[in-house]
Amino acid sequence: MKLDDIRAAAERIAATVVRTPLLPCTWADRDRPLWLKPEILQPIGAFKIRGAVNAIARLDEDARRRGVVTYSSGNHAQAVAYAAANEGIAAHVVMPASTPQIKIDNTRAYGAEVVLCGEGQREKVAYEIVAERGAVLVPPFDHPDIIAGQGTIGLEIAEDLPDVEVVLVPISGGGLASGVAAAVTALLPNAKVIGVEPELAADTRESLRAGSRVDWSVEKRNRTIADGLRSQPSELTFAHLKVHLHDLVTVTEDEIRSAMAVLAHKGRLVAEPSGAVTTAAYLYHAAELPAGRTVAIVSGGNVDPALLSDVLTRALDEE
Amino acid sequence: MKLDDIRAAAERIAATVVRTPLLPCTWADRDRPLWLKPEILQPIGAFKIRGAVNAIARLDEDARRRGVVTYSSGNHAQAVAYAAANEGIAAHVVMPASTPQIKIDNTRAYGAEVVLCGEGQREKVAYEIVAERGAVLVPPFDHPDIIAGQGTIGLEIAEDLPDVEVVLVPISGGGLASGVAAAVTALLPNAKVIGVEPELAADTRESLRAGSRVDWSVEKRNRTIADGLRSQPSELTFAHLKVHLHDLVTVTEDEIRSAMAVLAHKGRLVAEPSGAVTTAAYLYHAAELPAGRTVAIVSGGNVDPALLSDVLTRALDEE
Repeated sequence: MKLDDIRAAAERIAATVVRTPLLPCTWADRDRPLWLKPEILQPIGAFKIRGAVNAIARLDEDARRRGVVTYSSGNHAQAVAYAAANEGIAAHVVMPASTPQIKIDNTRAYGAEVVLCGEGQREKVAYEIVAERGAVLVPPFDHPDIIAGQGTIGLEIAEDLPDVEVVLVPISGGGLASGVAAAVTALLPNAKVIGVEPELAADTRESLRAGSRVDWSVEKRNRTIADGLRSQPSELTFAHLKVHLHDLVTVTEDEIRSAMAVLAHKGRLVAEPSGAVTTAAYLYHAAELPAGRTVAIVSGGNVDPALLSDVLTRALDEE
Repeated sequence: MKLDDIRAAAERIAATVVRTPLLPCTWADRDRPLWLKPEILQPIGAFKIRGAVNAIARLDEDARRRGVVTYSSGNHAQAVAYAAANEGIAAHVVMPASTPQIKIDNTRAYGAEVVLCGEGQREKVAYEIVAERGAVLVPPFDHPDIIAGQGTIGLEIAEDLPDVEVVLVPISGGGLASGVAAAVTALLPNAKVIGVEPELAADTRESLRAGSRVDWSVEKRNRTIADGLRSQPSELTFAHLKVHLHDLVTVTEDEIRSAMAVLAHKGRLVAEPSGAVTTAAYLYHAAELPAGRTVAIVSGGNVDPALLSDVLTRALDEE
């Protein structure tokens, strides 16, 4: 990924995507100040809009007439639906039937046609729609345009906090981490980009240790509450992660829940579990992280209302 | 209030205050698009930091040595404590003993000395500290530097959304509304700035109808859950409101709670009751508002965790 590709993406998405500020945290440790990068503020509540808008902006007239299709359990689905509607393009979104209802409802509300499918069938069903309709596939992470779009977050961090020392980024399919790490390491060679995974979906940690991709079953990855972090890197994103990632930290399910409560009570942000893993790493894994000025990317905030209430109410009992 | 004073304030506060983005709401009515101005993102969780930083930046060396004092039930206290600490200045903050514990704790955490007092005694106690120590009073709203600081929100709205038609702003002491209305009406003569009050603390509506300030008792104003909206305008702020405010809408306690839940679930923002009144007006008082492109200022997010849980859990039951 070239820096120029990420810069070009930043220009393409500027009119649609919120330029999120870095938020200084008064509750951080003094020797390692923390800023949050709140991607929950995006129109669809997650960073995924950046890659989707960039990819769709690059389609030619012919492709626009044929429409787009994607497969996603969540935020990428909403991102493609929103970005396509914004450009007046038809969108089909293939989602596993197990997807949280709020994400299905939101995707439909943005105007996309949702196609529900069985677990593990989503890519197959999406390719069937590509074959039938000639629609263009906008994959969730395995594409240079998607990686470049997500990488614009790294550009903004480097611009707003050029003396940042540590950037914490969630890892699932690796599109966000690949793009952010490419941008940050190109612009700020001394900054360290560190991935964060749930312990229950730590396939990338195992893969990085092994030096090549290790496959975890869908069932195994689906154990984590962080439903946005259940994918695995592709060859393309894994190649980026091997080169650019300084380290990787894993967090427990309890830590994710606690971090959600801290973000709500002290950061005044509603984060979904996947969006809270970087804050969990900052709060509960300080010994594994370099000291210094830290940015945590709060990647998304599409949490089921019942889960949010449960997390906040349990946190009260524990105080 | 001259526009140049507000512009000068914007320069003074730029290094300390977050430049909050306007957030487009996908869940808004189609014929009156809504953007949120999320002042909850400020370091102290509320817009009050703008006025406090501006006022303290203007102090001379002699005043800095003597320190500052203020009286406030909440966010202004935290703002003065934070802004003073940021400049290495001592701060005394007089708070009613009835202030929510989270706001007392936060004010102390920012390094200020908190002086608790009886209801209705806070101004008197503050002036005693001024007399004893020679400290400089930084009042919550009744001062041109405070109004100019809060007015920077209006500058930002006009810059980011020059075709805005309606700006909804909460009214308490009137510092925020005065500054925002002065900036917006100067820059965008066709935009209408509309104040929002709780029905249970609607002294300003009554005052505007009467043409001069009508006094409501502290006990009467304290009935509202919106603890940040229990003050009344001063002569200075009321004069601004009379000139610049297009209209005023009041909201019920149930509407405030419902709007807090909508902001959390759909806007992914934690708002305190005072911060949710503008969204309540948008959602539940459309018939009283002009149509068109609307901005709602979400003024603060310092809500007691137990209240937040209660509001979100009750909202689930009602869905």
